Amino acid sequence: MDSLALWNRYRECLCECPGLGVSVDYSRIWFPDGFFESMEPAIQRAFRQMAELEAGAVANPDEKRMVGHYWLRAPERAPDDAIRKAIETALRELKRFARNVHSGRIRPPRARKFENFLVIGIGGSSLGPQFVSRALWSPRDRMRAFFFDNTDPDGMDAVLAQIGQSGGLARTLVVVISKSGGTKETRNGMLEAELAFKRAGLSFARHAVAVTGDASELDRHARAAGWLQIFPMWDWVGGRTSELAAVGLLPAALQGLDVDGMLLGARYMDEATRVPVTRKNPAAVLALMWHHAGAGRGAKDMVVLPYKDRLELFSRYLQQLVMESLGKEHDLEGKVVEQGLAVYGNKGSTDQHAYVQQLRDGVNNFFVTFLEVLRDRHGRSSQVEPGVTSGDYLSGFLQGTRRALADKGRESLTVTVDHVDAMTIGRLIALYERAVGLYASLVGINAYHQPGVEAGKKAAAAVIGLQHKILQRLRTERAKSFTSEELAVAIGEPAEVETVHWVLRHLAANPDHRVKTRPGKTPFLTTYSAS
Amino acid sequence: MDSLALWNRYRECLCECPGLGVSVDYSRIWFPDGFFESMEPAIQRAFRQMAELEAGAVANPDEKRMVGHYWLRAPERAPDDAIRKAIETALRELKRFARNVHSGRIRPPRARKFENFLVIGIGGSSLGPQFVSRALWSPRDRMRAFFFDNTDPDGMDAVLAQIGQSGGLARTLVVVISKSGGTKETRNGMLEAELAFKRAGLSFARHAVAVTGDASELDRHARAAGWLQIFPMWDWVGGRTSELAAVGLLPAALQGLDVDGMLLGARYMDEATRVPVTRKNPAAVLALMWHHAGAGRGAKDMVVLPYKDRLELFSRYLQQLVMESLGKEHDLEGKVVEQGLAVYGNKGSTDQHAYVQQLRDGVNNFFVTFLEVLRDRHGRSSQVEPGVTSGDYLSGFLQGTRRALADKGRESLTVTVDHVDAMTIGRLIALYERAVGLYASLVGINAYHQPGVEAGKKAAAAVIGLQHKILQRLRTERAKSFTSEELAVAIGEPAEVETVHWVLRHLAANPDHRVKTRPGKTPFLTTYSAS
Repeated sequence: MDSLALWNRYRECLCECPGLGVSVDYSRIWFPDGFFESMEPAIQRAFRQMAELEAGAVANPDEKRMVGHYWLRAPERAPDDAIRKAIETALRELKRFARNVHSGRIRPPRARKFENFLVIGIGGSSLGPQFVSRALWSPRDRMRAFFFDNTDPDGMDAVLAQIGQSGGLARTLVVVISKSGGTKETRNGMLEAELAFKRAGLSFARHAVAVTGDASELDRHARAAGWLQIFPMWDWVGGRTSELAAVGLLPAALQGLDVDGMLLGARYMDEATRVPVTRKNPAAVLALMWHHAGAGRGAKDMVVLPYKDRLELFSRYLQQLVMESLGKEHDLEGKVVEQGLAVYGNKGSTDQHAYVQQLRDGVNNFFVTFLEVLRDRHGRSSQVEPGVTSGDYLSGFLQGTRRALADKGRESLTVTVDHVDAMTIGRLIALYERAVGLYASLVGINAYHQPGVEAGKKAAAAVIGLQHKILQRLRTERAKSFTSEELAVAIGEPAEVETVHWVLRHLAANPDHRVKTRPGKTPFLTTYSAS
Repeated sequence: MDSLALWNRYRECLCECPGLGVSVDYSRIWFPDGFFESMEPAIQRAFRQMAELEAGAVANPDEKRMVGHYWLRAPERAPDDAIRKAIETALRELKRFARNVHSGRIRPPRARKFENFLVIGIGGSSLGPQFVSRALWSPRDRMRAFFFDNTDPDGMDAVLAQIGQSGGLARTLVVVISKSGGTKETRNGMLEAELAFKRAGLSFARHAVAVTGDASELDRHARAAGWLQIFPMWDWVGGRTSELAAVGLLPAALQGLDVDGMLLGARYMDEATRVPVTRKNPAAVLALMWHHAGAGRGAKDMVVLPYKDRLELFSRYLQQLVMESLGKEHDLEGKVVEQGLAVYGNKGSTDQHAYVQQLRDGVNNFFVTFLEVLRDRHGRSSQVEPGVTSGDYLSGFLQGTRRALADKGRESLTVTVDHVDAMTIGRLIALYERAVGLYASLVGINAYHQPGVEAGKKAAAAVIGLQHKILQRLRTERAKSFTSEELAVAIGEPAEVETVHWVLRHLAANPDHRVKTRPGKTPFLTTYSAS
């Protein structure tokens, strides 16, 4: 296609909603003539299903839950008054709480003010807050954000050391976030933090708030210990779509970000993407382009390249939102489909120096989403050469890469926003939430559950159970040394010998459980005993 | 396969080099009987090619360069004395420089000591330093590391603001890294930093060192301006394999990390992976497993999951090393092959909550590399429940996910290390450098060039060139307003109208070039003029 033909295609394939500040260019996805017509019945069905979901239908059939993240930014759309009031009250409460923390009305026992907050959460209870914290960070933030997002002891030690260099725990508020209240990584993070506060001679309860479901394990723990406050999570908000619930808004409000702007941006984007006119609806356009690029079965990866450092975590946020929603074994009729859409990427132009080599020349198993931000920086730029700024180069690299890929037949989408502020972040979140929902309808899957996550958790629990048996046995027969195979037999789990072996290696590498090791001629002849 | 069969497979498929502290479990790649035998001639050829390369053969034929990153940790292997001496001198010099900075013998004009360093580089001149800085960080570091790794003006402003909160530019050493000395992102970063120093009333030259090739643009600039010191880069070290040259070692030494340990770890790993006994050679095993999993054409993505927060950037480091090396259009005979191996991932168990749902249940287009670290933390752990630590959970989640994936037929490798220290980092770098080199031989491609990167750079330069013409024209006819199409014609580039349009949108969104806009009924009727 020559340049003028591409220009005409671009003019036809630019989805721009007036006043929205977000446009989607889909001219570099090579869908054929007639594609939109052929998909029209399917996308209209998706619009209808979305409308039912927004009206409170049980859209998550196996979990018998409503899916209501759209109500968070339009409480008047909630299916009943109780939900509407719960949303409004939670928002009012978390803003009041943040105000009181900033003013020092709510203050730590041993310092004048809270200056840091530590979010303890994982997955849906962490990625959104981390993405937004980084995207909207400014040197004028009201508080400094830290995160525990794993059960890595060394990782938590590192964060605690950084807090130590930044005012210390005495000035740190802890926000423990777990919808179910039973996520082990988060529970462990909370216990490690409690211990650190205790060692510093500080009352954890006077520094802690929770965001969790009513009557969850965390809810009961926080109430019993008398934490500062508890903010609600509801069963009709999924973890990966909870950024605009207290999960995301409380940390944002503490940091001093414009939570009302985030909500308003999402609300406007919802309105624009509710319109059932396919090519005027940017969420529908995204869903259809993903469907075309990946042949409706995730045959190609989505590489997300925001050309803006602040948005570096957007690709990780989308990785979760898209892959956990769309990576499903069964369709809604129970047929095995093994659906999904793999997402990766960091930022441009940095990633050009990491793997655009492969994208342009190598295996053609992807399409790119460029994310363009028109505004370069807050202030003015100086020139890096006559008549050119750093930002002109950033823009040039995006355009150059888009062209270099298209020249080799590689597909791309470009999402353009004016600048990065709270409204824009709200719009982007809402745009992709709806695109994922519509895509799920197109391929006939449930986007709102995650049955595949349970197996790994169960298997992990079995490992922990086996570790108990192993330690018990070693301590009962202190005089004796066992190989992995001998010990698996001794605890009556001969078939679990591999797990026994892995657990023993890990136990012996750490001083905590006092397991001694004597190396054998091979790793399998190494023996273990209690010391 | 039942548990005991898997245990026997694990025993057979564990590649462990005594004393190396790294093992590779490849029992969960479902290669068939006879696979190793069938690949033996190819891997032996790869060993021979690697031996020639290490002896100084021109292994990068189109660029007529030797490939000598292996000599960096074994200078006695360099093909001539001049190279050997250059390696040894550079190492001695950079360690001496770091010592002098730490002692205050080399100090900034307006402060007692350098407390921060700002690395300005991109791709191979940034990812390695960032990975190592994070992996080996401790609260006892000698200096604090910051990075400019893009030409995003707002991103640089953010880093400068963070430096402002951490002692300021007066206490900051700048390390500008560019092998070619002509990378625009790095040049722009340097100029933005120079300006920030000037605004702060500081002499940039007294704060700056360079790492670059002899007589490069950067080399000449640094000499002319009288920078503190210039460290060498050589044409026989590729950017993505330069972590153990001054590119990586200077930042590491400044941070106070054990650069000799990194080199020693790599040296030992090189020795272990030079052994041409396939199943005893962890690099060969990795290369062969990638080959099997991806059918020798990158048919599956490699998902890298280090279960250790410190190693979170390892997957990005590998993304660059693997994709830029292996993502090639042509094989060595010039045939179009479109090779590659896509790499993504962040860390476990965090990513379990983001996309293990898709990995287990969804599209089976990947294999996982688990990276296991046996040691949990520096000190001792408390228990999070009776008899169990946070680290036991981390280990349990890794094992649980490995099993849950295998139960569904998904493939995985596990690389295990004892703990994370400088030696281990050196080993991991060397292990993957060699695995990539061997894999490239298996599929018959040149791993040491990146021809596909040029097209995007050229296209970006063309955009900048067009911007000049646009601005000139607007300024010549100040009274006049143009649509994109009118302006493309006016500057004699009617075919480039799309680029003209994109450039105008960007110019109008920023105050720097004084381009005014008047919105039209559609984005294509918007007019632009100089103000």
